[in-house]
Amino acid sequence: MAASTSERLSVLDVARGARQAANKLALLSDGIRREALLAVADALVSRQSEILNANQLDVELASEAVARGDMSRAFLDRLKTSEAGMSQMAAQVRAVAALQDPLGIVLSATQLDDDLKLYKVSCPLGVIAIVFESRPDVIPQVAALTLRSGNAVVFKGGKEAANTNAALLNTWQDALKLFSEIPPNATNLIHTRTDVAELLALEDEVDLVIPRGSKEFVRHIAKTSHIPVMGHGEGICHVYVDSAADPEKALAIALDSKIQYPAACNSMETLLVHHDIAPVFLEEIVKRFRSAGVEVRGCSETVSLAGSEAVFPASDADWSTEYSDLVVSIKVVDTMDEAIQHISRYGSRHTETIVTDDHCTAQDFMNRIDAAGVFHNASTRFADGFRYGLGAELGISTAKLHARGPVGLEGLTTYKYKLVGQGHTVEPYVRGERSFKHTPLPS
Amino acid sequence: MAASTSERLSVLDVARGARQAANKLALLSDGIRREALLAVADALVSRQSEILNANQLDVELASEAVARGDMSRAFLDRLKTSEAGMSQMAAQVRAVAALQDPLGIVLSATQLDDDLKLYKVSCPLGVIAIVFESRPDVIPQVAALTLRSGNAVVFKGGKEAANTNAALLNTWQDALKLFSEIPPNATNLIHTRTDVAELLALEDEVDLVIPRGSKEFVRHIAKTSHIPVMGHGEGICHVYVDSAADPEKALAIALDSKIQYPAACNSMETLLVHHDIAPVFLEEIVKRFRSAGVEVRGCSETVSLAGSEAVFPASDADWSTEYSDLVVSIKVVDTMDEAIQHISRYGSRHTETIVTDDHCTAQDFMNRIDAAGVFHNASTRFADGFRYGLGAELGISTAKLHARGPVGLEGLTTYKYKLVGQGHTVEPYVRGERSFKHTPLPS
Repeated sequence: MAASTSERLSVLDVARGARQAANKLALLSDGIRREALLAVADALVSRQSEILNANQLDVELASEAVARGDMSRAFLDRLKTSEAGMSQMAAQVRAVAALQDPLGIVLSATQLDDDLKLYKVSCPLGVIAIVFESRPDVIPQVAALTLRSGNAVVFKGGKEAANTNAALLNTWQDALKLFSEIPPNATNLIHTRTDVAELLALEDEVDLVIPRGSKEFVRHIAKTSHIPVMGHGEGICHVYVDSAADPEKALAIALDSKIQYPAACNSMETLLVHHDIAPVFLEEIVKRFRSAGVEVRGCSETVSLAGSEAVFPASDADWSTEYSDLVVSIKVVDTMDEAIQHISRYGSRHTETIVTDDHCTAQDFMNRIDAAGVFHNASTRFADGFRYGLGAELGISTAKLHARGPVGLEGLTTYKYKLVGQGHTVEPYVRGERSFKHTPLPS
Repeated sequence: MAASTSERLSVLDVARGARQAANKLALLSDGIRREALLAVADALVSRQSEILNANQLDVELASEAVARGDMSRAFLDRLKTSEAGMSQMAAQVRAVAALQDPLGIVLSATQLDDDLKLYKVSCPLGVIAIVFESRPDVIPQVAALTLRSGNAVVFKGGKEAANTNAALLNTWQDALKLFSEIPPNATNLIHTRTDVAELLALEDEVDLVIPRGSKEFVRHIAKTSHIPVMGHGEGICHVYVDSAADPEKALAIALDSKIQYPAACNSMETLLVHHDIAPVFLEEIVKRFRSAGVEVRGCSETVSLAGSEAVFPASDADWSTEYSDLVVSIKVVDTMDEAIQHISRYGSRHTETIVTDDHCTAQDFMNRIDAAGVFHNASTRFADGFRYGLGAELGISTAKLHARGPVGLEGLTTYKYKLVGQGHTVEPYVRGERSFKHTPLPS
């Protein structure tokens, strides 16, 4: 059903329609999925004035809300798109089309016995629900990733972006009409919070929920539903400057990790500094932070080394705060063990960096830290699907199961075991008349 | 802490101790983990009289419960172990020791830029909780799998097996005392339902819950906790006999899938038969089922073809029933589409078999069916970790995320991304002064 008609369908009907669409999408060839995305990218450009008009409507309503004090300026900024924004959306869709097919990959193959072969083959998850707040670019980006991976998708966007989202989805669905193999309910839009609550209860119809928004939002969805959720709670990332660190590398990495884009989840919140290097390092990094406009909060040793005019005393709450802003906390540690304990206690298992020229120390840190990313002599800001070479990113998972760290197309797939025999039964193996060979086959 | 002392610890203390142990276990060498398992296997044999005495105590108490009518005979049978059972447990532990190390495997490696390399490396999950009912062999089997994969484990067994479980765990922990690198709280035992409820709330301390028991039990755990759960709800598996099936293969596969071990989750519950082959096939399979003591329930066409004296009429409830017993339901379908629709509606996405000599039909069935296992000309009973060559099995997952189908050691691991640079910051890439190479490295 097109977006305009799904308003008239019950959420259960939408979900069941999506399930039927998913069954068909799983069978589409790589070529069709790629061509369809290129057609959509063209349509996003050719119909951009229609989409921008819709966006203008949303922006006007939002501006009134900002004037009334009901909405933040930052929210309005995220809502607004432009011709450049539209080109970027189209480029993202084309980039996803260019990615290698994630489906039908033989992950392993085993000859169990004569004429009995087992294949573990990647396949789509099925129906993905995306619940997001205002950013309009989520629709083309996520719709592209789900179509590329053969999944159906149900969107629920913020009501502030309702016109933009509807225009984007209409464009998307119209472009796909040229491809008779692609069912119209491959992409779906639901509208209200009640709809979301209904959807989150449909465990049999929805395979994965991806909430995009604040950590409270992600947590709320995870608590509400028993459908698996992929999302990240928060990013409390650390840079640990070891006693054997090269101070220049440490300065560059600490600065980049903090100031390059402080709102990102992969930015550093707390800098840990070995006490042997603190006297030479702290004064300089604090000076650099302050000239970059960063507020510095430090432990007592940091304050005494860098001066109380430059560093505010940190409270216990600072160690567990994701500032997402130009604020940093600094703690001096006596040993790497202390740094690891601090990270284990306060970190969110997102990304942790050690700066050191001692290879063994680096290995030890990377083996002992339990996080999606453990970095040596590199900025925490590298924790990103594009930078990792995944081509596109759905988000960064701080969960350990299924997908961890930046999630690309692979995170939208599962696998099935295909077993091909010639009438094989297990009875002869149980009786001991036959035994398994278990020879690996080239996959 | 040893099992005997964990009674005095709070559940939170047990879980935190397990987390600390997990941090150490993650760093153990392959050799130590293997040697430790071999030592435990020896101890299970050398201390078997102590374990069997404890088991005898449990069996006596259970026998009284059976006499009072408070417990089923089948439950008592599962509880009871023997010298042969102990040898089998030791053999299972040795088999796990012999499996390839699942840790430290480089799953992918990419050169992001000069001197900037990204590695995706397998590592343990951390702390695994196992909640199970009576079978005593769960402890050595699961403790072996968790230790082999570098995880700590918290057990909660049924109170009916309390003496057996304590004796098994004491033996296990005593044997590990010879290995100073292995922390004593690598294996832990909690005791009451209240303990379990407390444990299931500790999202930060427990990474995965594995419930082993009835589908109601698994569902209860999944509903109660927001910790990821790995388990399977039910196994409603089908065999579809296509019009192009070889009748001899179809008979062998249908019989093996039903009668080889009807209580197993990978046994067939419903046989779907194409109407073109039904006249020649149904009479014979019904005769064979009946001589094997299988009660047959069929759709109206089955009844009319095989005779109402041989086949009871099936009700709608039959199609969604996991008999786990010598009962089978049979339905005649007009097309493979109808078979697929039936499986999609009533199946539990566990294992589905097609019997056909038409290769294209088989491919189509296997691509279209959404299940952990899709088989061609092979019994559903092959859906098993040992038969698949995984070496050992924790269970069969009917979930799609993380692990699907038979779950072995790999299901107890996650991965981390290790990034090694030389002081790299993202700023030059954002400014466009440098660009990524993203060259695959040999992994």
